[in-house]
Amino acid sequence: MKKRNTLTLIILLFTFGAGFSIRPYADEAVPFPEGYRTWAHIKTGLIGPTSPGFKTAGGFHHIYANDKAMAGYTIGSFPEGSIIVFDVLEAIESNGNTIEGKRRHIDVMIKDSIRYSKTGGWGYEEFKGNSKTERMLTDTVRTQCFNCHTSQKDYVFSSLRE
Amino acid sequence: MKKRNTLTLIILLFTFGAGFSIRPYADEAVPFPEGYRTWAHIKTGLIGPTSPGFKTAGGFHHIYANDKAMAGYTIGSFPEGSIIVFDVLEAIESNGNTIEGKRRHIDVMIKDSIRYSKTGGWGYEEFKGNSKTERMLTDTVRTQCFNCHTSQKDYVFSSLRE
Repeated sequence: MKKRNTLTLIILLFTFGAGFSIRPYADEAVPFPEGYRTWAHIKTGLIGPTSPGFKTAGGFHHIYANDKAMAGYTIGSFPEGSIIVFDVLEAIESNGNTIEGKRRHIDVMIKDSIRYSKTGGWGYEEFKGNSKTERMLTDTVRTQCFNCHTSQKDYVFSSLRE
Repeated sequence: MKKRNTLTLIILLFTFGAGFSIRPYADEAVPFPEGYRTWAHIKTGLIGPTSPGFKTAGGFHHIYANDKAMAGYTIGSFPEGSIIVFDVLEAIESNGNTIEGKRRHIDVMIKDSIRYSKTGGWGYEEFKGNSKTERMLTDTVRTQCFNCHTSQKDYVFSSLRE
């Protein structure tokens, strides 16, 4: 009987151990927001060469939200699972017309109060160009994201443009 | 028996007559594209004051597509029911940053080969500002839309930005 209990304990430990290793909470990496290009478009801006923000986010930027984040923009508080994408593209000007160029990067915010409890319940990441895997942010920069977003209600700067 | 047949005929005529009167094909008006702000965002451009297009479409323009039109962008041919919206907003520049202002108008294309058979199977309309009812296009202008769009495959100028 003691042997059986020990075996049960080992199985339980193994099961939960394996469970923990694949649980997202064990890993704070922010996943690439698959399909975001068909999500709702919140708003757009253009940061030109004379702007102080040009180096980091120069060009067009579009903000996209998944269904949960869309609800958040409407009610003013973002539910778990909300994802917001800040999509930055080069801007190419010719004869007074400016069109979109290559993607510079996307910035992602994802709401998961447990997984990202250290940064206000939001996880932050940046993916380079069109890469879905090349993550750009260090822990230090993530903390900077968090510190800056802290000034905003539920950590979100943007509002839904009519 | 003859009376009954006559009655049936009257009922049938009335039914179909009423049917015809409420069929959309009897009316070529393009409906306002309800909910388009959450449709997929195809691409964006900015038309500046020095552009020849500034007077008619100056500012930011965003193109949105319903699900059917999204399929059309992918397969290269637009199914019945496709709707494309060209959303024009004022552009406000300050310190090198350009943000969106008020809506100038939206232009709408809707694919219905029967209803809009005279203009290549697409109906064209423009709604002023945020109005859902104030239609701006005359038959002459609609014909101009058609004539210009004729140069494009399935009458659509835009392509889906990555």
